[in-house]
Amino acid sequence: MKASQFFISTLKEAPADAEVVSHKLMMRAGLIKKLGAGIYNYMPMGLRVIRKVEAIVREEMNRAGAMEVTMPVVQPAELWEETGRFEKMGPELLRIQDRHGRDFVIQPTSEEVVTDIARQEFKSYKQLPKNLYQIQTKFRDERRPRFGLMRGREFTMKDAYSFDKDRDSAQISYQTMRAAYQRIFDRFGLQYRAVRADSGAIGGDLSEEFQVIASTGEDAIVYCPQSDYAANIEKAECLAPAGPRPAASQPLQKVATPGNSTCEAVATQLGLPLSQTVKSLVLATDTSNEAGEIVQTQVWLLLLRGDHEMNEIKVGKVEGLANFRFATVGEIEAHFGCKPGYLGPIGLKQPVNLVVDREVAVMADWVCGANEEDFHITGVNFGRDLPEPAVVADLRNVVAGDKSPDGAGELAIERGIEIGHVFYLGTKYSQAMNATFLGDNGKPQHFEMGCYGIGITRLPAAAIEQNHDERGIIWPDAIAPFTVVICPIGMGRSEAVKAEAEKLYAELLALGVDVILDDRDERPGAMLADWELIGVPHRVVLGDRGLKDGVVEYQHRRAAEATKLPTADALAHLKAQLGLH
Amino acid sequence: MKASQFFISTLKEAPADAEVVSHKLMMRAGLIKKLGAGIYNYMPMGLRVIRKVEAIVREEMNRAGAMEVTMPVVQPAELWEETGRFEKMGPELLRIQDRHGRDFVIQPTSEEVVTDIARQEFKSYKQLPKNLYQIQTKFRDERRPRFGLMRGREFTMKDAYSFDKDRDSAQISYQTMRAAYQRIFDRFGLQYRAVRADSGAIGGDLSEEFQVIASTGEDAIVYCPQSDYAANIEKAECLAPAGPRPAASQPLQKVATPGNSTCEAVATQLGLPLSQTVKSLVLATDTSNEAGEIVQTQVWLLLLRGDHEMNEIKVGKVEGLANFRFATVGEIEAHFGCKPGYLGPIGLKQPVNLVVDREVAVMADWVCGANEEDFHITGVNFGRDLPEPAVVADLRNVVAGDKSPDGAGELAIERGIEIGHVFYLGTKYSQAMNATFLGDNGKPQHFEMGCYGIGITRLPAAAIEQNHDERGIIWPDAIAPFTVVICPIGMGRSEAVKAEAEKLYAELLALGVDVILDDRDERPGAMLADWELIGVPHRVVLGDRGLKDGVVEYQHRRAAEATKLPTADALAHLKAQLGLH
Repeated sequence: MKASQFFISTLKEAPADAEVVSHKLMMRAGLIKKLGAGIYNYMPMGLRVIRKVEAIVREEMNRAGAMEVTMPVVQPAELWEETGRFEKMGPELLRIQDRHGRDFVIQPTSEEVVTDIARQEFKSYKQLPKNLYQIQTKFRDERRPRFGLMRGREFTMKDAYSFDKDRDSAQISYQTMRAAYQRIFDRFGLQYRAVRADSGAIGGDLSEEFQVIASTGEDAIVYCPQSDYAANIEKAECLAPAGPRPAASQPLQKVATPGNSTCEAVATQLGLPLSQTVKSLVLATDTSNEAGEIVQTQVWLLLLRGDHEMNEIKVGKVEGLANFRFATVGEIEAHFGCKPGYLGPIGLKQPVNLVVDREVAVMADWVCGANEEDFHITGVNFGRDLPEPAVVADLRNVVAGDKSPDGAGELAIERGIEIGHVFYLGTKYSQAMNATFLGDNGKPQHFEMGCYGIGITRLPAAAIEQNHDERGIIWPDAIAPFTVVICPIGMGRSEAVKAEAEKLYAELLALGVDVILDDRDERPGAMLADWELIGVPHRVVLGDRGLKDGVVEYQHRRAAEATKLPTADALAHLKAQLGLH
Repeated sequence: MKASQFFISTLKEAPADAEVVSHKLMMRAGLIKKLGAGIYNYMPMGLRVIRKVEAIVREEMNRAGAMEVTMPVVQPAELWEETGRFEKMGPELLRIQDRHGRDFVIQPTSEEVVTDIARQEFKSYKQLPKNLYQIQTKFRDERRPRFGLMRGREFTMKDAYSFDKDRDSAQISYQTMRAAYQRIFDRFGLQYRAVRADSGAIGGDLSEEFQVIASTGEDAIVYCPQSDYAANIEKAECLAPAGPRPAASQPLQKVATPGNSTCEAVATQLGLPLSQTVKSLVLATDTSNEAGEIVQTQVWLLLLRGDHEMNEIKVGKVEGLANFRFATVGEIEAHFGCKPGYLGPIGLKQPVNLVVDREVAVMADWVCGANEEDFHITGVNFGRDLPEPAVVADLRNVVAGDKSPDGAGELAIERGIEIGHVFYLGTKYSQAMNATFLGDNGKPQHFEMGCYGIGITRLPAAAIEQNHDERGIIWPDAIAPFTVVICPIGMGRSEAVKAEAEKLYAELLALGVDVILDDRDERPGAMLADWELIGVPHRVVLGDRGLKDGVVEYQHRRAAEATKLPTADALAHLKAQLGLH
């Protein structure tokens, strides 16, 4: 490709609404163009990246035995009513009526449609396993679309769905997809981790996210440097604390803590470590009658160490708390007779469901609120000042330094961007839609399903969050819009420069290299800045002066400085850099 | 690909709602699966065809210098309001509101969005010409979707848009696209014609349709076998009739034609050729006031030869008839005092706007209605029985045997399926959206635009309409789901068959041939019927008996019989058939 025949449109400044670096750089490099909130045009430079991402995904999905289909963007609501998602999903599901007033949805995923295909096409266990995938436009009407392609409304997803005859076979399908995902992410040239994720009501461990490591990532990833343990923070398990509870050594004492309504403030005032304090969180659960009216509300008090954070997924697994919500200030004051910030489990006027984090259960001489404004209590001990806790559970997020659940070492935490997800669905959809095949026992059985997503248009954004510097993007070779750029200085004035540039260009093209020759005859500064912003990984600069000395300059986008090469060696050097033989 | 790892799902019978052969065969061969009215899943076998169509289109669009972009499926209504299409387009435009109640449309085409890109990105004439294209999902809420992919609601279109600085340059862009389209359709391996089409209000000849020739096509195509003249029937011009009008030779005579209300019936009764009769068509035009109320209606009488058909496009170009409609029976009876079937231009009680086809204007002694039920008049002559016609125009469709407008011979007519369209748009959209660039005179100028479409998902349907027989589809090599199928007979029983089939399969794969090995071990009859239905163009059958005699069978899908080949020659024969060296 020659730059004069392509469309290069770079900006000095990112638009004001671009908050994260990938969004800023994608806009500045002219990869995308905003059409509306969370809706983007993919410009020629950006679409080249997307197409490379798609090609790698498609190749590895096919290699793994999955078959490509395309399911409609506009889908009849009937199928979505079979699973109840037409009603249950919130306004992020874009609903639409056709000219005859029939309901449709714009697909956010395609479980319903693919299950409908399976129940019609896969009649016998002999036809299983099968895996159908598509690379297709999706729409989710996010309440607050932002961060460019990171959380857009219209996006492209690769979604695959496996159908198996039983759970064992479904596990094999899952592992096949997991292995394909590893090949895909390896080929992208990105640093990533496959981390365990919560599999919700389905249970088990068959749910993993593929996270691209980036300090700007929205997700916290927990991993053990000494083993292959990795999980997202929601899922990562805290080991039960070692050893017995120390003996009580302090008397119970009420202390004035005027205005200090946080554990941090209390610890500071009292000169204690934050880990000696206990925070009280108040939750509520509602019971409704058949008409949906709330007939009863229970109040729950959770105790966590002052330096720990509550993990909502774990809390939701405590018996009775599946549908918890945070109590309102009104409910708290009514129940505790005290405003939030000074609550605790001692001296309660009304009974409360107490749930204690495992870490708190082994503490002695701790500090909590006195259920009286501007007062706390120190030297609190279970068994002495309040009963031994009846309900003890893992309620908190792990923190760096916690023991790894596999016993291999201490956990570390880093940030990531979720870019893929493999998930064992079980019979959730096949039961809802009564999708069955004839089993080897001659009876209809529900398909065991899995689903597997990759955010095709999100991936370039994640790649940029991981790979950029102050000058712009640094693409991995596999998904760069161009692999090599040739920048001739003063091509319009110098026949020698033009001839050498065209020669190298032709040689690289003949090797099948995705090369762009910048024949725009721009000023050198502007030209080089454009390509640094766009992030083409390999660059060759040719100029009159160099050519007279018999040299050209090669620079990898990640390198601090250019390397001078004998002109005759340029091609061989590039081939070596690109891994060509 | 091995069939056991692919998804083959053929049907003996087409579903009842499949009316045309391509729809029936696509359903029976398992290429597509209906999800709703005019909405289809593309199954693995069908998607292979679509992907090959896309690849050819993409390659030739890129070669022609067009740049690929992707514009959103869900588009903000604001841009569509700028051109007025948000209001003007009928219910085929799917309108939608997001969670905030903002209006959006599902794109049926993308003139608005691409013009919006151009006005932001193409600031100077130096950046022109530019051509942006996409291969993208479209939706048109057809009132009556039918014929499978031929007239679906959701479909894939390649739409390209060119931007030029002036009309001359726009003509070059148009011709470049036209040439690319010819290469594309040549590569598809289809018989097609580029035919002139009407360019509506924009005028000029820069509008052509690419029609795939098929006897089942919806469109009539006019062409001259002796030249390259070709046009769709709407556009095809009738030459002015040669020579002067013969002299009147018959007296005017009223004849009883009881019950004979058509030209055919009258001609039969009177023993005259149909071409001696003249039919009277009554049109109406309404004038509205500012409130949109009709304040005046004019009635028009059109005279055409009894054996000719009215051409609505041509009639609409007659001064005053731009917005004509057919008159109602009530209007006709009120104006002519006679019911339809017996109308004519003689003896009118009220004045009428008379428009005469050129062919009628040179007739003598013709027959028309008497404006009296069950009566006609014979021996009618202009100048004697009624005034010479004031308005004479080309009002009719050409018929086979008419002189070609280029004088090269006689016109022929065949049927076609429109699969592509190249269209010079002028400044229609750039003016409506005030999309300008800085011209070389330093002043803002409106882009000269063109648009160029190819129906990606319609193309396989058209290919099938053109290429099929009673056994199924006959794909051209370039867009076949597989190019070669190897059918081993009794593979499960015979090691020799298995070994020979696997060997040929591996050899073809190594050559990059898109081959499928049917290792399902089906009965021979069912297996061969499947592949004849699916329409893979090249087939090799291997069986134990043949192998013992040292032969395999090759058959092209179009051939009546198989050719026996020495087993050792099979690969060489296939290479020759596929044009490989």
